[in-house]
Amino acid sequence: MRREEYIQILDGTHPDHGRGVALVHQGLIVLSGLAISLETIPDLPGWAHTALFAFEAFVVATFVVEYLARIICAKRPFRYIFSFWGIIDLLACLPALLIVQQQWAAIRSLRLLRLIRLLKLLHANRALIRLEQALAKSRGELLVFSFLAAIILYIAGVGIFIFENEAQPEVFSSIPKGLWWAIVSFTTVGYGDMYPITPEGRFFTTVILFLGLGVIAVPTAIITTALINTDLKETIEREVEEEVGEIEREVRKDLAPFKRKPTRRS
Amino acid sequence: MRREEYIQILDGTHPDHGRGVALVHQGLIVLSGLAISLETIPDLPGWAHTALFAFEAFVVATFVVEYLARIICAKRPFRYIFSFWGIIDLLACLPALLIVQQQWAAIRSLRLLRLIRLLKLLHANRALIRLEQALAKSRGELLVFSFLAAIILYIAGVGIFIFENEAQPEVFSSIPKGLWWAIVSFTTVGYGDMYPITPEGRFFTTVILFLGLGVIAVPTAIITTALINTDLKETIEREVEEEVGEIEREVRKDLAPFKRKPTRRS
Amino acid sequence: MRREEYIQILDGTHPDHGRGVALVHQGLIVLSGLAISLETIPDLPGWAHTALFAFEAFVVATFVVEYLARIICAKRPFRYIFSFWGIIDLLACLPALLIVQQQWAAIRSLRLLRLIRLLKLLHANRALIRLEQALAKSRGELLVFSFLAAIILYIAGVGIFIFENEAQPEVFSSIPKGLWWAIVSFTTVGYGDMYPITPEGRFFTTVILFLGLGVIAVPTAIITTALINTDLKETIEREVEEEVGEIEREVRKDLAPFKRKPTRRS
Amino acid sequence: MRREEYIQILDGTHPDHGRGVALVHQGLIVLSGLAISLETIPDLPGWAHTALFAFEAFVVATFVVEYLARIICAKRPFRYIFSFWGIIDLLACLPALLIVQQQWAAIRSLRLLRLIRLLKLLHANRALIRLEQALAKSRGELLVFSFLAAIILYIAGVGIFIFENEAQPEVFSSIPKGLWWAIVSFTTVGYGDMYPITPEGRFFTTVILFLGLGVIAVPTAIITTALINTDLKETIEREVEEEVGEIEREVRKDLAPFKRKPTRRS
Repeated sequence: MRREEYIQILDGTHPDHGRGVALVHQGLIVLSGLAISLETIPDLPGWAHTALFAFEAFVVATFVVEYLARIICAKRPFRYIFSFWGIIDLLACLPALLIVQQQWAAIRSLRLLRLIRLLKLLHANRALIRLEQALAKSRGELLVFSFLAAIILYIAGVGIFIFENEAQPEVFSSIPKGLWWAIVSFTTVGYGDMYPITPEGRFFTTVILFLGLGVIAVPTAIITTALINTDLKETIEREVEEEVGEIEREVRKDLAPFKRKPTRRS
Repeated sequence: MRREEYIQILDGTHPDHGRGVALVHQGLIVLSGLAISLETIPDLPGWAHTALFAFEAFVVATFVVEYLARIICAKRPFRYIFSFWGIIDLLACLPALLIVQQQWAAIRSLRLLRLIRLLKLLHANRALIRLEQALAKSRGELLVFSFLAAIILYIAGVGIFIFENEAQPEVFSSIPKGLWWAIVSFTTVGYGDMYPITPEGRFFTTVILFLGLGVIAVPTAIITTALINTDLKETIEREVEEEVGEIEREVRKDLAPFKRKPTRRS
Repeated sequence: MRREEYIQILDGTHPDHGRGVALVHQGLIVLSGLAISLETIPDLPGWAHTALFAFEAFVVATFVVEYLARIICAKRPFRYIFSFWGIIDLLACLPALLIVQQQWAAIRSLRLLRLIRLLKLLHANRALIRLEQALAKSRGELLVFSFLAAIILYIAGVGIFIFENEAQPEVFSSIPKGLWWAIVSFTTVGYGDMYPITPEGRFFTTVILFLGLGVIAVPTAIITTALINTDLKETIEREVEEEVGEIEREVRKDLAPFKRKPTRRS
Repeated sequence: MRREEYIQILDGTHPDHGRGVALVHQGLIVLSGLAISLETIPDLPGWAHTALFAFEAFVVATFVVEYLARIICAKRPFRYIFSFWGIIDLLACLPALLIVQQQWAAIRSLRLLRLIRLLKLLHANRALIRLEQALAKSRGELLVFSFLAAIILYIAGVGIFIFENEAQPEVFSSIPKGLWWAIVSFTTVGYGDMYPITPEGRFFTTVILFLGLGVIAVPTAIITTALINTDLKETIEREVEEEVGEIEREVRKDLAPFKRKPTRRS
């Protein structure tokens, strides 16, 4: 009984003082993310480095303590350790080892793991679950359209290589580079690092772009449809039920004098 | 009675001559916005500067007069002064002080306050209120998605820094710069000031971009759903009520001969 | 009777041979548009110029003949001349005058008028009318959002000028230039000719961009809602009517034995 | 009987072992697409070239065998050969001829044909068919808007040429170049290779851009409406039927004691 309460406090579901701990906890995650970001600014003064390192050490210590507390207090510790959130919690503690041995070359890329802490913030959100259901329903359509989009991207990448390779051998030097151009163009980002210059390349781009933007517009429509269906279904159900129920009551009231026996159902 | 009428005239809700005053008033705000904009064009001839300054002084004077009139005519002056629109009106008058003492360094940035006047134009718009209601309903989902978007932006900013820092140390010099890249890319603006050049950076961009654009497509779907729900609910309600009401009348007419006593409800 | 038929032939509504004339007519408009476009390519060979000029003369002659035919055959010629399509037809003939006097300086910009011919192709399209009705319904909301978008654009243009003018006095030299940046950024085109470089300018861009993109996403939602409402209203009406009608028939059949007198309404 | 089974195996619809063959088949297509892409990377080591060529030869051989098998096993071979998928299968085999005679100049562009294999993956997908129905319903509207978009693109291309040709004679040298700018701008890609610099050109861009983006937003709304209609129609039908059916049962149960004869319909 006692032990479960500690986990409730850490999760923010404890009736008395859990909410406060959870908010401090989540604030710490966000601040830690900002600290990781600020650390990388070049020409940072020495005191800032020291402060950020101290904060970093404090945050990681907190997570280690939390992880140990969760193992100790869990009803079934092994089940927690190998659960999805157990692994996330462990990964959040790993940077502790790196502070001891800072010279490792892999230190930089492992930092990314700390970001996974942020996923905790979404732990069991109701709005997210509702959307997940809507997405689950339209999974089939979304899959087909991801696939269609991949094909169009591939055709675009190959096509632009064929049309532009001779005119710009340095820029469109291979199909993988053409694919990068296709991705930058279809997402309509358009950095301007690569663009067709030949008339045939531009004509190909025009045709494939309008086709591809249509394909990209459809998933938005699909998600919208799924969300509206989930919501409107309830509305229609409730409305029809309510109205039809009213006339039912009216008709039965009118018929009441004719009945000799009381109806079984109220 | 007399005093309230002045406020009605200023608000444009007066039955007789309020509408005209309000239109002149709103036109003045828009013209003043244009004047602020034109003032900044370099190499403007002297007469233009003089004309714009005179117009500026006239507009600010109008707003000071309006603000004083509203205080004098208000039933509860203090309530107006500390209300939202009271503060907006006061801020709109502040540039009057700056004309007296033009050399202040802060003069430039305080100019922005004059733009707040424009907010007055939206004072009590019906279409806006309807949308606000739709937004209020889907606030939960929109919050979650703002949060999800923030996380993806953060991961994108950190990831691109890790992948591109070595190849382009000048361009991707820190995580905050990576975040700027992430914002420019996810909004699909793509200025072209920063873009990945390494194969792994480009692959990371591709994955994160398609994920992120999906997350950005969902809020549009949510707002659409909320708007449609508000509108369709009424349609369904009306339709079902009408149709069900008709059969109710029909059934009751048919049953009429059987009744000995008149029904209490018509 | 005879005269009206000629107009029907020109409009493509004649029962016998109108359709063919209208298709030739519309093809001529599209070909003329392509010819105008090709004319401007520099270093065009002489024979191409001659051919394009001859085609141009032929097209304009056709339109002059058509315009005169429409005036002669119209029941009320003056009503046609001053109607919307009458003026469009007259403007389409104007380039005829320019062929006579080619040296005019205004010749270039007046060419744009010929494009108005293309509007004829949309003459009385059913799908377009249906959309117009949907747009007309949501005119209020769309107006408010155009206005909101204008305000955000204005704030963005002024803000970026304040933040970036000192760092890039050449690029962000005035508020009108800031407004151009705002338009290029909010439409997510992002040419890359102007972009913020100071941290405060970038932070301002981030905040205003997410706010503004939300405002731009709403009109899409509004148009979708209007279109869905128009379509679904009919569906709901039909469905509810059908289903409720069925139970009506059932109930009345069951009640039939009780009736002494036939119901007045079938 | 025997022959049809072979085709079922190749199509992946065979009850016993068809699924496995189809998956290997589709995997081969995707891998072949990747191989084509990797082949083009410059400075590829010799062994990689050899490996990719061998894989290529293997894939094409597989397709030739499959094509022949399909002809032999088809009930009506000629009907298959001249069907849509028969032609696609034949085109997928063509690169076999090119391996024999590699020096042909057309070899590069004919490679694109191999991509058509990918279309096979979409063979008879249910989600795609459902979308096709939704698109078929709104074909009229989509056609009108493609047309409207084409007109606006044309006007934009001509307009920008008129406004910018004098200021940037090299960049906006002809209307076709203006059309390329219009396409890059309206799709909001914005590479940054061409952009207006004159105030009138920028003003024209602003007006035409907001108009054009609205036109492009409508097709998304139309597709969403078509999808929602298809889905919601069923929901409404089911809901109303269910609810009305329930009250029908209730009312008839209440009326049962009055009936002398059993109702004919249950």
